[in-house]
Amino acid sequence: MTEIRVAIIGGGGFMGYAHSLGWALAPIAADAGASIRKAVLVEADEERAKAAAKRLNWDDWSADWREVIARDDIDVVDIVTPPAAHAEIAIAALAAGKHVFVEKPISNDLTEADRMQAAAESSSAVSQVGFNYRHAPAISFIKRMLEDGTLGHPLQFRAHYTQDVGVLGRVLSGWRAKKGAGGSGVTGDIGSHIIDLASYLAGDIDAVTAVIGAKDPAENSAWLPDEQRREGDYLDDAALWMAKFHNGAIGSFAATVYASGRKNRMFFELECTKGNVEFDWNHSDELKLSLVSDPPEQQGFRTVSMNESHEDFWWPLGGMGSGYVDDAALQLQKFVKAIVEGRTGSPSFAEATQTQRVIAAVMESADSHQWVTVDEVTA
Amino acid sequence: MTEIRVAIIGGGGFMGYAHSLGWALAPIAADAGASIRKAVLVEADEERAKAAAKRLNWDDWSADWREVIARDDIDVVDIVTPPAAHAEIAIAALAAGKHVFVEKPISNDLTEADRMQAAAESSSAVSQVGFNYRHAPAISFIKRMLEDGTLGHPLQFRAHYTQDVGVLGRVLSGWRAKKGAGGSGVTGDIGSHIIDLASYLAGDIDAVTAVIGAKDPAENSAWLPDEQRREGDYLDDAALWMAKFHNGAIGSFAATVYASGRKNRMFFELECTKGNVEFDWNHSDELKLSLVSDPPEQQGFRTVSMNESHEDFWWPLGGMGSGYVDDAALQLQKFVKAIVEGRTGSPSFAEATQTQRVIAAVMESADSHQWVTVDEVTA
Amino acid sequence: MTEIRVAIIGGGGFMGYAHSLGWALAPIAADAGASIRKAVLVEADEERAKAAAKRLNWDDWSADWREVIARDDIDVVDIVTPPAAHAEIAIAALAAGKHVFVEKPISNDLTEADRMQAAAESSSAVSQVGFNYRHAPAISFIKRMLEDGTLGHPLQFRAHYTQDVGVLGRVLSGWRAKKGAGGSGVTGDIGSHIIDLASYLAGDIDAVTAVIGAKDPAENSAWLPDEQRREGDYLDDAALWMAKFHNGAIGSFAATVYASGRKNRMFFELECTKGNVEFDWNHSDELKLSLVSDPPEQQGFRTVSMNESHEDFWWPLGGMGSGYVDDAALQLQKFVKAIVEGRTGSPSFAEATQTQRVIAAVMESADSHQWVTVDEVTA
Amino acid sequence: MTEIRVAIIGGGGFMGYAHSLGWALAPIAADAGASIRKAVLVEADEERAKAAAKRLNWDDWSADWREVIARDDIDVVDIVTPPAAHAEIAIAALAAGKHVFVEKPISNDLTEADRMQAAAESSSAVSQVGFNYRHAPAISFIKRMLEDGTLGHPLQFRAHYTQDVGVLGRVLSGWRAKKGAGGSGVTGDIGSHIIDLASYLAGDIDAVTAVIGAKDPAENSAWLPDEQRREGDYLDDAALWMAKFHNGAIGSFAATVYASGRKNRMFFELECTKGNVEFDWNHSDELKLSLVSDPPEQQGFRTVSMNESHEDFWWPLGGMGSGYVDDAALQLQKFVKAIVEGRTGSPSFAEATQTQRVIAAVMESADSHQWVTVDEVTA
Repeated sequence: MTEIRVAIIGGGGFMGYAHSLGWALAPIAADAGASIRKAVLVEADEERAKAAAKRLNWDDWSADWREVIARDDIDVVDIVTPPAAHAEIAIAALAAGKHVFVEKPISNDLTEADRMQAAAESSSAVSQVGFNYRHAPAISFIKRMLEDGTLGHPLQFRAHYTQDVGVLGRVLSGWRAKKGAGGSGVTGDIGSHIIDLASYLAGDIDAVTAVIGAKDPAENSAWLPDEQRREGDYLDDAALWMAKFHNGAIGSFAATVYASGRKNRMFFELECTKGNVEFDWNHSDELKLSLVSDPPEQQGFRTVSMNESHEDFWWPLGGMGSGYVDDAALQLQKFVKAIVEGRTGSPSFAEATQTQRVIAAVMESADSHQWVTVDEVTA
Repeated sequence: MTEIRVAIIGGGGFMGYAHSLGWALAPIAADAGASIRKAVLVEADEERAKAAAKRLNWDDWSADWREVIARDDIDVVDIVTPPAAHAEIAIAALAAGKHVFVEKPISNDLTEADRMQAAAESSSAVSQVGFNYRHAPAISFIKRMLEDGTLGHPLQFRAHYTQDVGVLGRVLSGWRAKKGAGGSGVTGDIGSHIIDLASYLAGDIDAVTAVIGAKDPAENSAWLPDEQRREGDYLDDAALWMAKFHNGAIGSFAATVYASGRKNRMFFELECTKGNVEFDWNHSDELKLSLVSDPPEQQGFRTVSMNESHEDFWWPLGGMGSGYVDDAALQLQKFVKAIVEGRTGSPSFAEATQTQRVIAAVMESADSHQWVTVDEVTA
Repeated sequence: MTEIRVAIIGGGGFMGYAHSLGWALAPIAADAGASIRKAVLVEADEERAKAAAKRLNWDDWSADWREVIARDDIDVVDIVTPPAAHAEIAIAALAAGKHVFVEKPISNDLTEADRMQAAAESSSAVSQVGFNYRHAPAISFIKRMLEDGTLGHPLQFRAHYTQDVGVLGRVLSGWRAKKGAGGSGVTGDIGSHIIDLASYLAGDIDAVTAVIGAKDPAENSAWLPDEQRREGDYLDDAALWMAKFHNGAIGSFAATVYASGRKNRMFFELECTKGNVEFDWNHSDELKLSLVSDPPEQQGFRTVSMNESHEDFWWPLGGMGSGYVDDAALQLQKFVKAIVEGRTGSPSFAEATQTQRVIAAVMESADSHQWVTVDEVTA
Repeated sequence: MTEIRVAIIGGGGFMGYAHSLGWALAPIAADAGASIRKAVLVEADEERAKAAAKRLNWDDWSADWREVIARDDIDVVDIVTPPAAHAEIAIAALAAGKHVFVEKPISNDLTEADRMQAAAESSSAVSQVGFNYRHAPAISFIKRMLEDGTLGHPLQFRAHYTQDVGVLGRVLSGWRAKKGAGGSGVTGDIGSHIIDLASYLAGDIDAVTAVIGAKDPAENSAWLPDEQRREGDYLDDAALWMAKFHNGAIGSFAATVYASGRKNRMFFELECTKGNVEFDWNHSDELKLSLVSDPPEQQGFRTVSMNESHEDFWWPLGGMGSGYVDDAALQLQKFVKAIVEGRTGSPSFAEATQTQRVIAAVMESADSHQWVTVDEVTA
């Protein structure tokens, strides 16, 4: 069994923590035909690198990502730095022949994302972006029901990603909220996940129209008017947009951090010609499924608990329960499988770049008050 | 105790049935300081009028609404005909000094609606339109929490009204789906209810942007393209729209009859600065309520079951259960109260006309692919 | 179409109110081939009788039930007095050839209940007892799935009926809590409904074992010990019992008025060899249904909303919503149908008497701390 | 920071897998002031030991638990063998001065359990039993609300643990179902978890009464009669029991593997004088909480999602999601903390032995058809 040796770049923050847990669940990866070695953790600050490597159980540490990428005993480079650093590291790692995993967003700069996509497509190494939610077994099951015809054709996709951090007084901080600092606001930060899922499940998005709101931290009455919002490039902390899909389906999206009582709730409904599904990350082991073919007197949404009959389910029994750690592990397991089988990861750099293009179209539409065709976005 | 004598016009159909049940729950109305006499049921066809009056327990029947409106022993005219007949009857009844209740929509023709509004406003009689859902005790409770400051300021309103009749093969029939026949499609038929609630709770709507879809009955893949949809003025059976409210809040709406497993489901979330509410007509006795002021470790949505501490709740004990009949009775009870107290009913002809203006703006936006300012709609 | 003329005895209280609403929904009864006349309301106190008849829209009033029972123009006697008066009135009414509807409990005295059953069985008149919940469309649907084999054989029935009135400071009052006054405590008052449903759906109960608790109103720590509870024949306000059914199934029951947050919640699960159902009165339009025969990856509980494909559903569309009024009307509609067709009502006096026998067995077991065979209860 | 070196005995099966995942989430344990070394995995069969150690990422393997226990470089012995082997290994490990973690049940033989308890109590080493569910943050939060008076005094505890494995055709296998083989049937296997939680939250159980059922694999109609069930010591696959708690509370329990649609569902409600809580393992990140002190019009169950304000919650944000792996890690983290602080683990050997005594009382009551006092069980 091959051993895959991983270096994690920028591993001292939250995503370093989450990825370390994911990589630690090595027994899972074993099913992919490879074992995992958590070889080296990189942080620019030496003390921080050393402490994190010890705490998160990595064999070694380094303060120099270039040196690590040059090492022969590293197979995978896992990039969890802030987005502005993604392009340089990823392109260098691919050039050095390493497989590359990049956290989402691939980049908040479309030009950089395009360059990363080009680098990935001209390399024989495997690359993947960290849209973790699409790897939940319930999502894989929906994908399968779309591919095998169980659900028929998508008609309408409605999603929202809501949190209460804003309403609890924690406004989006620093670089996340400011355009100049490479931030993406709430649309890019959490809205990106529902765009990824929409594209994955309901197909390519052709055009969007959007309205966004940003709160004045000093005032508690309603969203700032556009004029004030643009000052200092303060981005959105609530956004609504609609989409036309290439296949004719239509969609509706919301993202906000001003939703009292919502604890990281990502939710969508996908109505199709033969059935309807509903998914709520807060109950991520479950899926609600309605089928038109059921007898009328027995028709209604089934609460299907993921179980041993579903792909990617790794317990002997349904109902044992899974969450963020499991999902972090699953996406890395799939990345490892892609490496072993020599396939592109999911989502690819190309898919993740397209998701950024949709986000840019949303922001452009919020400014222009017009429908924006995604492929015409210049960013 | 005054007795209020009611004539129902067009009472032989479904709404005649529902209103008859509502008026029959007379003991409730008694609390409004008046008793009810179901005096006469009108249908153009004599046999139908006779049979319905007997079945639905009305004292008398007639085939001539003009004659009934002229009678001295009638206090209230309750109009449940198709929308195209509303204006003529309502204006005549008001002119005759009768109190007028009109089923929604007040009219699908904005010019007619404006004339009805003018007639109501120049009359001393009481008038009301049948947006029944706003009378559910849970909705009254939300309204009160908005007025007394419990919820703070509205930020985001998201609603959908979904049914499965389309997906079960029952396409919107005849006049409902065709513009020429006075229809309103799914936006006017069911979407109107969520516009009414949005306006009632979150405030006036300034502008909308919309996308709609209509199915080709012969084809089962996706929505018809605009070009084909317009042929024969075939209207929408799925619609998405967004709104900007006058107070700065933003909103998102969906209506569809192509939602497998949805049985007449009207749902909304209203996020405010101090709390969040969620309402689902399928569980109409309940309200979900989250309050920012709750201690962090106890924060979350409460499922509040309507009970004897809530306005308009008419059982000695919470949890006894209510539904469409109760709601039909409640809206008539409130109409009776308005008559006894000499107030305008809720919603007034003016409010219902404004709701039609928003619907017209939605349809115009779906054609123009632009944001449409509601007050600039010419229809 | 026959007209059925009803007299209601003891109609001035809550049940008089609820039954009046039920009888008022006459259009429903019309489907049973008869129309309804609310002929006379009886209360011992003249003023009260007069006021209630007016408010609840009865044609006439009386203070003498014997005189009313003797009238020729009365077809149905509807008895909603306190239980201690049931036997005398019901037996006299049957002797006078009237159809008799009695609210539950048929009687808290088993000897009286036996005499009522005998009177009903030797009469050609139709009789029925007011266990209203078994008439909800969802319950009828479960019954049908048991009869047609969809669910297979019952294995386990678990139910609870919980309210929060005790915990809110309203202890069971007067005659309801005291044995000497003909009370039945929480087991008889609300527990009786889940015994009725258990017997109706899962079959005859052979034996029970029970434990009950009663609160000392002056003390708030836990249930009173048995010794203190017996003083003054103070009955239960919380009860747990288990049952062995004749067909081999086993069951578990709870009833309490000390359940914070529960608003009249009656809940049960019925596990069978081929499927599983769950019902919650707080969502009485729905039924949760799991079928063993579903494919493993689609298996789970369906939330089936009652709709036009279900027996006894009286709307053109699922999801319109129903509650206590609808249920009150449905049970009277079925009673009318039984009269028209000359059948015994459901539940019959015999069934309701057996339910009282189970309640007596529960109380006896709570005293003896032994399993008690229902048919050996002497009361 | 201390390093704690762990040996796992019997680690080749499912519990070896689950514990390995738990121990792998080392960063968590770091918060307890110690790091973890997965030192050696023991299985009687050499090949199996070797393969499992590699797959589950243990440093070393052995086929001889006695040799491992004698090693100086082992601090913790984690016993996940079948229950019959627990006593010998645990007592030897304690004698060797090792800290001992034993999977539940501590033993199905009460005499052995008593000896294990005595060994633990006379040792200075730390011991703990693997009732994992009590470590979920939601359970810790309930415990705290009981201790600080938020909930008041327990009145009624109702729990069930239901699975569908039986109804799907997988009857309880081999040693689990047979008494001679050290099995415990469904009461001991899954029912034990709800007894543990009942004791932990609602207090000591004084007495129980029970009824159990076992299916004839060849027959699909109902539970076997007692006579047939006893043949070959075939144990239960469905059980109902009631309990009297020492503090006056009363309780009701169910366990079954014949519940269609239930995927490892452990559920309980705990009604107290000042509030009510509901917990469902299938939504283990949540807790339903009702408080008597809430204003009547806002009263109802809150769905509280575990978040950063709760003890033992290890994410920066509520709603990220957790499951079985997180729980496995949490119980080991708490065990490590107990070691670091020199306290007894939770539950202790004494608590786990008492849980076995309750299980024995349930089985005895099912045979004798009498209430059984737990402390009088001889087993």
